[in-house]
Amino acid sequence: MEHFMKAALKEARDSLAEGGIPIGAVLVHQGVILGSGHNRRVQLGSAVLHGEMDALDNAGRQPGAIYRDATLYTTLSPCAMCTGAILLYGIPRVVIGENRTFLGEEALLRERGVEVEVLQDPECIALMERFIADAPELWHEDIGE
Amino acid sequence: MEHFMKAALKEARDSLAEGGIPIGAVLVHQGVILGSGHNRRVQLGSAVLHGEMDALDNAGRQPGAIYRDATLYTTLSPCAMCTGAILLYGIPRVVIGENRTFLGEEALLRERGVEVEVLQDPECIALMERFIADAPELWHEDIGE
Repeated sequence: MEHFMKAALKEARDSLAEGGIPIGAVLVHQGVILGSGHNRRVQLGSAVLHGEMDALDNAGRQPGAIYRDATLYTTLSPCAMCTGAILLYGIPRVVIGENRTFLGEEALLRERGVEVEVLQDPECIALMERFIADAPELWHEDIGE
Repeated sequence: MEHFMKAALKEARDSLAEGGIPIGAVLVHQGVILGSGHNRRVQLGSAVLHGEMDALDNAGRQPGAIYRDATLYTTLSPCAMCTGAILLYGIPRVVIGENRTFLGEEALLRERGVEVEVLQDPECIALMERFIADAPELWHEDIGE
Protein backbone atom coordinates (compact mmCIF):
# COMPACT_ATOMS: atom_id res chain seq x y z
CA MET A 1 0.00 0.00 0.00
CA GLU A 2 1.14 3.52 -0.80
CA HIS A 3 2.92 5.24 2.10
CA PHE A 4 0.34 8.02 2.55
CA MET A 5 -2.67 5.71 2.39
CA LYS A 6 -0.93 3.62 5.02
CA ALA A 7 -0.74 6.72 7.22
CA ALA A 8 -4.45 7.42 6.65
CA LEU A 9 -5.29 3.79 7.49
CA LYS A 10 -3.24 4.02 10.69
CA GLU A 11 -5.37 7.05 11.66
CA ALA A 12 -8.52 5.04 10.94
CA ARG A 13 -7.29 2.19 13.14
CA ASP A 14 -6.31 4.62 15.90
CA SER A 15 -9.87 5.92 15.84
CA LEU A 16 -11.30 2.41 16.14
CA ALA A 17 -8.98 1.74 19.09
CA GLU A 18 -10.39 4.87 20.76
CA GLY A 19 -13.93 3.53 20.29
CA GLY A 20 -14.50 5.80 17.31
CA ILE A 21 -15.43 5.56 13.66
CA PRO A 22 -12.53 4.11 11.64
CA ILE A 23 -11.96 6.68 8.93
CA GLY A 24 -8.65 8.49 8.58
CA ALA A 25 -7.02 11.00 6.27
CA VAL A 26 -3.79 12.86 5.61
CA LEU A 27 -3.15 16.09 3.72
CA VAL A 28 0.11 15.93 1.77
CA HIS A 29 2.09 18.73 0.16
CA GLN A 30 5.22 17.98 -1.89
CA GLY A 31 5.76 14.66 -0.17
CA VAL A 32 5.24 15.98 3.36
CA ILE A 33 2.22 15.29 5.58
CA LEU A 34 0.87 18.69 6.67
CA GLY A 35 -1.89 17.23 8.80
CA SER A 36 -3.34 13.86 9.65
CA GLY A 37 -6.56 13.05 11.41
CA HIS A 38 -9.46 10.74 11.98
CA ASN A 39 -13.16 10.86 12.67
CA ARG A 40 -13.88 12.38 16.10
CA ARG A 41 -17.65 11.93 16.36
CA VAL A 42 -17.41 9.59 19.33
CA GLN A 43 -14.22 10.94 20.88
CA LEU A 44 -15.20 14.64 20.89
CA GLY A 45 -18.94 14.44 20.24
CA SER A 46 -18.20 16.32 17.03
CA ALA A 47 -20.65 16.56 14.14
CA VAL A 48 -18.10 18.12 11.80
CA LEU A 49 -14.80 16.33 12.43
CA HIS A 50 -14.88 13.58 9.85
CA GLY A 51 -11.45 12.13 9.09
CA GLU A 52 -10.79 14.51 6.21
CA MET A 53 -11.95 17.55 8.20
CA ASP A 54 -9.76 16.57 11.14
CA ALA A 55 -6.74 16.23 8.86
CA LEU A 56 -7.45 19.68 7.36
CA ASP A 57 -7.92 21.15 10.81
CA ASN A 58 -4.73 19.57 12.12
CA ALA A 59 -2.84 21.00 9.14
CA GLY A 60 -3.71 24.42 10.55
CA ARG A 61 -4.11 27.64 8.63
CA GLN A 62 -2.44 27.30 5.25
CA PRO A 63 -2.22 29.74 2.36
CA GLY A 64 -4.35 28.95 -0.68
CA ALA A 65 -1.26 28.14 -2.77
CA ILE A 66 -0.43 25.20 -0.49
CA TYR A 67 -3.88 23.60 -0.80
CA ARG A 68 -3.80 24.06 -4.55
CA ASP A 69 -0.64 21.94 -4.68
CA ALA A 70 -1.76 19.28 -2.19
CA THR A 71 -3.27 15.81 -2.21
CA LEU A 72 -5.77 14.52 0.31
CA TYR A 73 -5.60 10.81 1.12
CA THR A 74 -8.67 9.37 2.80
CA THR A 75 -9.57 5.79 3.64
CA LEU A 76 -13.21 6.27 2.52
CA SER A 77 -15.01 8.09 -0.28
CA PRO A 78 -15.62 11.67 0.96
CA CYS A 79 -19.14 12.69 1.98
CA ALA A 80 -20.74 15.96 0.85
CA MET A 81 -19.20 17.94 3.73
CA CYS A 82 -15.64 16.71 3.13
CA THR A 83 -16.12 17.13 -0.63
CA GLY A 84 -17.16 20.72 0.01
CA ALA A 85 -14.03 21.33 2.08
CA ILE A 86 -11.89 19.94 -0.75
CA LEU A 87 -13.64 22.29 -3.20
CA LEU A 88 -13.39 25.31 -0.87
CA TYR A 89 -9.63 24.96 -0.62
CA GLY A 90 -9.13 23.95 -4.23
CA ILE A 91 -7.31 20.71 -3.40
CA PRO A 92 -6.67 19.31 -6.88
CA ARG A 93 -6.23 15.59 -6.09
CA VAL A 94 -7.90 13.10 -3.78
CA VAL A 95 -6.80 9.51 -3.26
CA ILE A 96 -9.54 7.32 -1.79
CA GLY A 97 -9.01 4.01 -0.03
CA GLU A 98 -12.36 2.59 -1.10
CA ASN A 99 -15.90 3.50 -2.15
CA ARG A 100 -17.51 0.04 -1.84
CA THR A 101 -19.01 0.60 1.61
CA PHE A 102 -19.94 4.26 0.99
CA LEU A 103 -19.95 6.27 -2.22
CA GLY A 104 -19.58 9.95 -1.46
CA GLU A 105 -19.61 12.93 -3.80
CA GLU A 106 -16.91 11.73 -6.18
CA ALA A 107 -18.99 12.78 -9.19
CA LEU A 108 -19.16 16.36 -7.91
CA LEU A 109 -15.41 16.38 -7.26
CA ARG A 110 -14.71 15.22 -10.82
CA GLU A 111 -17.26 17.65 -12.26
CA ARG A 112 -15.31 20.47 -10.56
CA GLY A 113 -12.03 19.28 -11.98
CA VAL A 114 -10.60 17.37 -9.01
CA GLU A 115 -8.52 14.31 -9.88
CA VAL A 116 -10.00 11.36 -8.00
CA GLU A 117 -8.25 8.03 -7.62
CA VAL A 118 -9.96 5.09 -5.91
CA LEU A 119 -7.71 2.28 -4.71
CA GLN A 120 -10.38 -0.23 -3.59
CA ASP A 121 -7.91 -1.31 -0.96
CA PRO A 122 -8.93 -4.61 0.71
CA GLU A 123 -7.80 -3.47 4.19
CA CYS A 124 -9.82 -0.25 3.97
CA ILE A 125 -12.88 -2.19 2.77
CA ALA A 126 -12.57 -4.85 5.49
CA LEU A 127 -12.19 -2.23 8.23
CA MET A 128 -15.38 -0.39 7.24
CA GLU A 129 -17.38 -3.55 6.52
CA ARG A 130 -16.64 -4.83 10.02
CA PHE A 131 -17.40 -1.47 11.61
CA ILE A 132 -20.72 -1.01 9.78
CA ALA A 133 -21.78 -4.54 10.76
CA ASP A 134 -20.80 -3.91 14.40
CA ALA A 135 -22.21 -0.37 14.82
CA PRO A 136 -24.81 0.38 12.14
CA GLU A 137 -26.56 3.12 14.15
CA LEU A 138 -23.34 5.04 14.76
CA TRP A 139 -22.45 4.73 11.11
CA HIS A 140 -25.85 6.00 9.96
CA GLU A 141 -25.57 8.94 12.34
CA ASP A 142 -22.20 9.85 10.85
CA ILE A 143 -23.63 10.10 7.35
CA GLY A 144 -26.75 11.98 8.46
CA GLU A 145 -29.18 9.08 8.05
CA MET B 1 -34.63 41.64 11.82
CA GLU B 2 -35.85 38.10 12.41
CA HIS B 3 -34.99 36.75 15.87
CA PHE B 4 -32.73 33.91 14.65
CA MET B 5 -30.82 36.06 12.18
CA LYS B 6 -30.28 38.50 15.04
CA ALA B 7 -28.74 35.64 17.04
CA ALA B 8 -26.48 34.74 14.10
CA LEU B 9 -25.45 38.38 13.72
CA LYS B 10 -24.64 38.57 17.43
CA GLU B 11 -22.33 35.57 16.93
CA ALA B 12 -20.69 37.37 14.00
CA ARG B 13 -20.12 40.47 16.12
CA ASP B 14 -18.77 38.39 19.00
CA SER B 15 -16.23 36.94 16.58
CA LEU B 16 -15.15 40.41 15.42
CA ALA B 17 -14.76 41.48 19.05
CA GLU B 18 -12.44 38.48 19.55
CA GLY B 19 -10.32 39.61 16.58
CA GLY B 20 -11.92 37.02 14.33
CA ILE B 21 -13.85 36.82 11.10
CA PRO B 22 -17.38 38.19 11.58
CA ILE B 23 -19.58 35.38 10.35
CA GLY B 24 -22.10 33.69 12.62
CA ALA B 25 -24.78 31.02 12.40
CA VAL B 26 -27.45 29.24 14.40
CA LEU B 27 -29.10 25.87 13.87
CA VAL B 28 -32.78 25.97 14.76
CA HIS B 29 -35.21 23.10 15.32
CA GLN B 30 -38.89 23.77 16.00
CA GLY B 31 -38.20 27.28 17.24
CA VAL B 32 -35.30 26.30 19.49
CA ILE B 33 -31.63 27.09 18.85
CA LEU B 34 -29.76 23.77 19.03
CA GLY B 35 -26.35 25.31 18.43
CA SER B 36 -24.88 28.69 17.64
CA GLY B 37 -21.39 29.54 16.54
CA HIS B 38 -19.02 31.77 14.67
CA ASN B 39 -15.92 31.57 12.56
CA ARG B 40 -12.92 30.37 14.62
CA ARG B 41 -10.09 30.69 12.10
CA VAL B 42 -8.26 33.32 14.11
CA GLN B 43 -9.39 32.30 17.59
CA LEU B 44 -8.52 28.57 17.28
CA GLY B 45 -6.34 28.54 14.17
CA SER B 46 -9.04 26.38 12.62
CA ALA B 47 -9.33 25.73 8.90
CA VAL B 48 -12.72 24.04 9.22
CA LEU B 49 -14.70 26.04 11.80
CA HIS B 50 -16.57 28.48 9.64
CA GLY B 51 -19.60 30.02 11.38
CA GLU B 52 -21.98 27.37 10.06
CA MET B 53 -19.64 24.51 10.97
CA ASP B 54 -19.15 25.88 14.48
CA ALA B 55 -22.93 26.11 14.95
CA LEU B 56 -23.33 22.51 13.76
CA ASP B 57 -20.50 21.36 16.01
CA ASN B 58 -21.91 23.20 19.02
CA ALA B 59 -25.29 21.57 18.39
CA GLY B 60 -23.54 18.29 19.12
CA ARG B 61 -24.46 14.85 17.84
CA GLN B 62 -28.05 14.92 16.60
CA PRO B 63 -30.14 12.21 14.97
CA GLY B 64 -30.81 12.59 11.25
CA ALA B 65 -34.51 13.31 11.89
CA ILE B 66 -33.61 16.50 13.77
CA TYR B 67 -31.46 17.90 10.96
CA ARG B 68 -34.14 17.06 8.42
CA ASP B 69 -36.56 19.30 10.32
CA ALA B 70 -34.10 22.14 11.02
CA THR B 71 -33.21 25.53 9.57
CA LEU B 72 -29.70 26.96 9.45
CA TYR B 73 -29.41 30.74 9.76
CA THR B 74 -26.13 32.21 8.63
CA THR B 75 -25.04 35.81 8.21
CA LEU B 76 -23.23 35.07 4.92
CA SER B 77 -23.85 32.89 1.88
CA PRO B 78 -22.39 29.43 2.68
CA CYS B 79 -19.13 28.38 1.02
CA ALA B 80 -18.66 24.94 -0.56
CA MET B 81 -17.65 23.34 2.77
CA CYS B 82 -20.63 24.64 4.71
CA THR B 83 -22.91 23.82 1.78
CA GLY B 84 -21.58 20.28 1.87
CA ALA B 85 -22.32 20.01 5.59
CA ILE B 86 -25.90 21.20 4.96
CA LEU B 87 -26.26 18.53 2.26
CA LEU B 88 -24.68 15.79 4.38
CA TYR B 89 -27.18 16.32 7.16
CA GLY B 90 -30.13 16.98 4.87
CA ILE B 91 -30.98 20.35 6.41
CA PRO B 92 -33.94 21.43 4.26
CA ARG B 93 -33.85 25.21 4.74
CA VAL B 94 -31.14 27.86 4.93
CA VAL B 95 -31.72 31.53 5.69
CA ILE B 96 -28.82 33.72 4.58
CA GLY B 97 -28.10 37.23 5.84
CA GLU B 98 -26.54 38.38 2.59
CA ASN B 99 -24.72 37.24 -0.54
CA ARG B 100 -23.52 40.63 -1.82
CA THR B 101 -20.00 40.36 -0.40
CA PHE B 102 -19.63 36.62 -1.11
CA LEU B 103 -21.79 34.29 -3.16
CA GLY B 104 -21.36 30.72 -2.00
CA GLU B 105 -22.87 27.52 -3.34
CA GLU B 106 -26.51 28.59 -3.24
CA ALA B 107 -27.12 27.16 -6.70
CA LEU B 108 -25.94 23.71 -5.56
CA LEU B 109 -28.15 23.92 -2.46
CA ARG B 110 -31.19 24.74 -4.58
CA GLU B 111 -30.30 22.06 -7.13
CA ARG B 112 -30.35 19.52 -4.30
CA GLY B 113 -33.74 20.69 -3.09
CA VAL B 114 -32.74 22.94 -0.19
CA GLU B 115 -34.96 26.00 0.34
CA VAL B 116 -32.70 29.05 0.32
CA GLU B 117 -33.82 32.48 1.47
CA VAL B 118 -31.52 35.51 1.15
CA LEU B 119 -32.39 38.52 3.29
CA GLN B 120 -29.82 41.01 1.94
CA ASP B 121 -29.76 42.46 5.41
CA PRO B 122 -27.99 45.87 5.51
CA GLU B 123 -26.32 45.15 8.88
CA CYS B 124 -24.88 41.85 7.64
CA ILE B 125 -23.65 43.52 4.44
CA ALA B 126 -22.08 46.47 6.30
CA LEU B 127 -20.30 44.16 8.76
CA MET B 128 -18.66 42.09 6.01
CA GLU B 129 -17.86 45.08 3.78
CA ARG B 130 -15.98 46.73 6.61
CA PHE B 131 -14.18 43.51 7.55
CA ILE B 132 -13.11 42.73 3.96
CA ALA B 133 -11.82 46.30 3.55
CA ASP B 134 -9.92 46.08 6.85
CA ALA B 135 -8.48 42.55 6.53
CA PRO B 136 -8.49 41.42 2.89
CA GLU B 137 -5.72 38.83 3.37
CA LEU B 138 -7.48 37.12 6.24
CA TRP B 139 -10.71 37.10 4.28
CA HIS B 140 -9.06 35.56 1.22
CA GLU B 141 -7.45 32.90 3.39
CA ASP B 142 -10.84 31.99 4.81
CA ILE B 143 -12.29 31.32 1.37
CA GLY B 144 -9.20 29.46 0.15
CA GLU B 145 -7.90 32.16 -2.16
